[in-house]
Amino acid sequence: MTELTGKIVLGPHRYGKAENRVVRIVRDTDRHEIRDLNVSSCLHGDFDAAHLEGDQGTVLPTDSQKQTIYSYAKEKGVEFIEEYGLALARHFVDDVEPVRSARIEIEEYAWERVVVDGAEHDHTWTRKGSEVRTAAITVEGTGTDRREWVVGGLKDLVVLKSTGSEFQGFLTDPYTVLEPAEDRIMATSLQARWRFASTDVDWDTVYAGVRATLLEVFANLHSKALQQSLYEIGRAVLERYPSIAEIRLSAPNKHHFLYDLARFGVENAGEVFHADDRPYGLIQASVLREDAPDAGITWEPYTGIM
Amino acid sequence: MTELTGKIVLGPHRYGKAENRVVRIVRDTDRHEIRDLNVSSCLHGDFDAAHLEGDQGTVLPTDSQKQTIYSYAKEKGVEFIEEYGLALARHFVDDVEPVRSARIEIEEYAWERVVVDGAEHDHTWTRKGSEVRTAAITVEGTGTDRREWVVGGLKDLVVLKSTGSEFQGFLTDPYTVLEPAEDRIMATSLQARWRFASTDVDWDTVYAGVRATLLEVFANLHSKALQQSLYEIGRAVLERYPSIAEIRLSAPNKHHFLYDLARFGVENAGEVFHADDRPYGLIQASVLREDAPDAGITWEPYTGIM
Amino acid sequence: MTELTGKIVLGPHRYGKAENRVVRIVRDTDRHEIRDLNVSSCLHGDFDAAHLEGDQGTVLPTDSQKQTIYSYAKEKGVEFIEEYGLALARHFVDDVEPVRSARIEIEEYAWERVVVDGAEHDHTWTRKGSEVRTAAITVEGTGTDRREWVVGGLKDLVVLKSTGSEFQGFLTDPYTVLEPAEDRIMATSLQARWRFASTDVDWDTVYAGVRATLLEVFANLHSKALQQSLYEIGRAVLERYPSIAEIRLSAPNKHHFLYDLARFGVENAGEVFHADDRPYGLIQASVLREDAPDAGITWEPYTGIM
Amino acid sequence: MTELTGKIVLGPHRYGKAENRVVRIVRDTDRHEIRDLNVSSCLHGDFDAAHLEGDQGTVLPTDSQKQTIYSYAKEKGVEFIEEYGLALARHFVDDVEPVRSARIEIEEYAWERVVVDGAEHDHTWTRKGSEVRTAAITVEGTGTDRREWVVGGLKDLVVLKSTGSEFQGFLTDPYTVLEPAEDRIMATSLQARWRFASTDVDWDTVYAGVRATLLEVFANLHSKALQQSLYEIGRAVLERYPSIAEIRLSAPNKHHFLYDLARFGVENAGEVFHADDRPYGLIQASVLREDAPDAGITWEPYTGIM
Repeated sequence: MTELTGKIVLGPHRYGKAENRVVRIVRDTDRHEIRDLNVSSCLHGDFDAAHLEGDQGTVLPTDSQKQTIYSYAKEKGVEFIEEYGLALARHFVDDVEPVRSARIEIEEYAWERVVVDGAEHDHTWTRKGSEVRTAAITVEGTGTDRREWVVGGLKDLVVLKSTGSEFQGFLTDPYTVLEPAEDRIMATSLQARWRFASTDVDWDTVYAGVRATLLEVFANLHSKALQQSLYEIGRAVLERYPSIAEIRLSAPNKHHFLYDLARFGVENAGEVFHADDRPYGLIQASVLREDAPDAGITWEPYTGIM
Repeated sequence: MTELTGKIVLGPHRYGKAENRVVRIVRDTDRHEIRDLNVSSCLHGDFDAAHLEGDQGTVLPTDSQKQTIYSYAKEKGVEFIEEYGLALARHFVDDVEPVRSARIEIEEYAWERVVVDGAEHDHTWTRKGSEVRTAAITVEGTGTDRREWVVGGLKDLVVLKSTGSEFQGFLTDPYTVLEPAEDRIMATSLQARWRFASTDVDWDTVYAGVRATLLEVFANLHSKALQQSLYEIGRAVLERYPSIAEIRLSAPNKHHFLYDLARFGVENAGEVFHADDRPYGLIQASVLREDAPDAGITWEPYTGIM
Repeated sequence: MTELTGKIVLGPHRYGKAENRVVRIVRDTDRHEIRDLNVSSCLHGDFDAAHLEGDQGTVLPTDSQKQTIYSYAKEKGVEFIEEYGLALARHFVDDVEPVRSARIEIEEYAWERVVVDGAEHDHTWTRKGSEVRTAAITVEGTGTDRREWVVGGLKDLVVLKSTGSEFQGFLTDPYTVLEPAEDRIMATSLQARWRFASTDVDWDTVYAGVRATLLEVFANLHSKALQQSLYEIGRAVLERYPSIAEIRLSAPNKHHFLYDLARFGVENAGEVFHADDRPYGLIQASVLREDAPDAGITWEPYTGIM
Repeated sequence: MTELTGKIVLGPHRYGKAENRVVRIVRDTDRHEIRDLNVSSCLHGDFDAAHLEGDQGTVLPTDSQKQTIYSYAKEKGVEFIEEYGLALARHFVDDVEPVRSARIEIEEYAWERVVVDGAEHDHTWTRKGSEVRTAAITVEGTGTDRREWVVGGLKDLVVLKSTGSEFQGFLTDPYTVLEPAEDRIMATSLQARWRFASTDVDWDTVYAGVRATLLEVFANLHSKALQQSLYEIGRAVLERYPSIAEIRLSAPNKHHFLYDLARFGVENAGEVFHADDRPYGLIQASVLREDAPDAGITWEPYTGIM
């Protein structure tokens, strides 16, 4: 047994207010707009004394962070969640002395207008889809040391194709009992995060375009494995959007097992499946550019820590 | 303390297989169709000996019910979930001797086709919305004693209006501190269940019409309280659909609290809200016809029991 | 298609404030006590005008109900959740004019004291188990028409036995492929609700006794099916507690499938299982006394509605 | 807008089978033992062709990984989850040619024996607590390049103290409205992960000791902030366990707000609280030794990715 005797010291630390449920209504005209957000803040900085001695002199309460998050929804607006997140992160770094870097994580829930008599309603919506748009904004340092990163993304985009997917020719070992599949259901709940090369981006246009690209490639590619689909999705996104330096994809393989009906004399040619919950395959891949700028601290998760 | 001494007897009992995740693909042409279901079966009947003596002689295994549920997805198809449920319930009552009545509860998850280059894809879909279509089918007895009930419904239909809602003139007591609201956000996650007067119904047309009616009334009615909205929704549904005998509505009042920004010198005229999770108001109402046929055992829940 | 033409009328309706998360600390001495509750209120009464005309004149806001729920946690205390619930329900019926009956549903989360150096800590606890104690209190009418019901209960009591359970001799049909099992794992997440014959009960003693009885019978009975276990549990509870008129039990059969390792030349004599999530068997049974008093409206669920 | 033009390449990638729900019964004597696990595998290696060309020749199916996970529960046993995880990870690296490193993540759910007539039952248990024991085992390389890391941990350990916690003297800014608190409830759902310096550890003894230490420090320390509690917890763990090189702690501050009852003429001296769900403070800190060996790739999460 290895016994260590080195001095015990405080390592990296951070804190913030997680999951502020901000709903912003824009009501400048009779046709209202809605943005429905879940906002988390995370501050790094000179907070050693709070840990070592219980001295809160450099600690801005998480409650103050919460107030700022709500107030900025009006002061700065949330026309683009990326800009709103940048405004918050810059504020914490610039205006709160002990803060060295700030991270803002945002989830946005989509709504769609109710249609009445063929017309979109001015101020009534239903929640749209299970999918969540995400953004993670990191701002570090001041003056010439200032660095800023924006990671766009989405999660819980549940997508399924009923043909155009196979899984064959795989490596086998003594525990391999799986039969090759020439034609199967492929389904996943896609999570994608893409890192921008700068903060000067047409946010909503790129988001819509990346989302459409993900779905187009998933649908149109005849897939030999989820790995191939992920890579081709990532490549297509980077090819179409030079503002994106890198994309990371995580995809559970939501298994749909063909149900054995032959026992009952019933033919089942890819028509009846059991959708299983667990276990699931979990495939993760990244695609990037050779000239991608340094990612710095941007990929450190906060609220999603295991 | 009241002490009872009466004979102890077996009361009502039932059993089944819950949450069978059936996915049915129709692939007769290149343009596939998908129905994604969560199916539960529940049998009532002569199962006393299983409880009293552990004798399984009249008990059809829940595994056999599961097999039937999957097999009927091909044998009978699932063009309409109500017909598929009726086929299953009739089968258990007619073909399994000890069964006196059967209930089939179905949740259906909606999918929408991926659009690529402006065209709907033949075999790729994304999950649509949080909303779930429901059906509960009950079949009781055989021959001239045969009775059948179908309850259609939906749940988790999250809907919000940013104006056109007030709450004023309410009863007050010593614990009342709430201020009247002239203009507020009204949001709910609507659950509705409607009982049909017969089993001869144009299922999908009525479902689409009821759903549209719910949303139309919620959107267009200037609401003095969620109670009023529920009643007007129910009345409109019954007026438009003479095939429906009764409708039950359950609506959590998902509170959106106007955020106090005046403390920071920021005006907030109905623009920034905190969406609170708990507690929530919970409003439930039913609307029915005076000539509604007897509901029998149809409103007894199964998987949703508290 | 049956078309109904009867007059459309308002049916049963009710409302309240659900899921108030009340935490009550008793700190009369250095050894604190904690009660951690989730409280929901439900009022029935003369609220027709709110539905039909939007007139809130008889509607006590759900916010006022919330304030009362928190204030009574101090005014009346929560030594027993059943007494606390009775105090709340009686208050709403007696002190709020339009209310005809009131229902209070309570979930209580158990905590256990942290043990430091062999001694229980005075004011620090950890959450204990997944199990939740429940109570549903219904009070109806005033004066000589007054009726009161208390239903105790628990849910999410996850229990498993690794032997002493079989399932054989069952009815078969053409869809039966299940093999009889001589020795299997039996596991469930037990939900039980028991109706008291009066409100004069030694609440905590009976709760502890019923819980112990549930577990003892589940453990000791060699079970021929979950149905038998439920009945014997119910019978034992009623035999031991003459204050209880009726018990209802709901038990998902959480399947543990013996894993096929023979394919890899590995013996598996009841040692390695896959714990499956869905589907699951769902068994429900009630046991009651022939002299049980009328249950009135007490079994109508509120927050648990399907 | 920054436009990148660099070559697009495949970045880091990995795959595995997540959430295998393995239940292992040891039945060598009448007194059975149970281990209830959720096991995920993750492989890194030469899988480029699967992504770039859809060639599965080096891809061991996730199904084969699943079979191995279940089979090893018997072949190797699960006396200690860390040893079981090491056996699996070593197998994938050593026996599957294209694999360069393997990570096994395990959650273990605790059970406690049912007590009947004062004696622990031989083969019946209830689920114990909400808390989950975790382990993450990483094995990389072969021969002299072989490296192995084990991270122990727990999550969802919900703990609350009703006094002995303050929060005062904090930094203020224009958004600060929080009042200092001299005496408050402090509650969290603790997640801790600790990295061992070697794989030669008395696993269960250390786990029990770390868990007891976490609770003891949380309970006994008069806390000036959650930050201080986390640091003191980490320091105590490292002081007592020289086999541990580093510990990482993540703690949501589960707010309990003192309820304002003065409005109703009711005194509330720290007795009635509202337990709020969201937002919550989120505090994260690490404590480590200056002579801690290199962490390599061990802190990369897999199933917990944001």
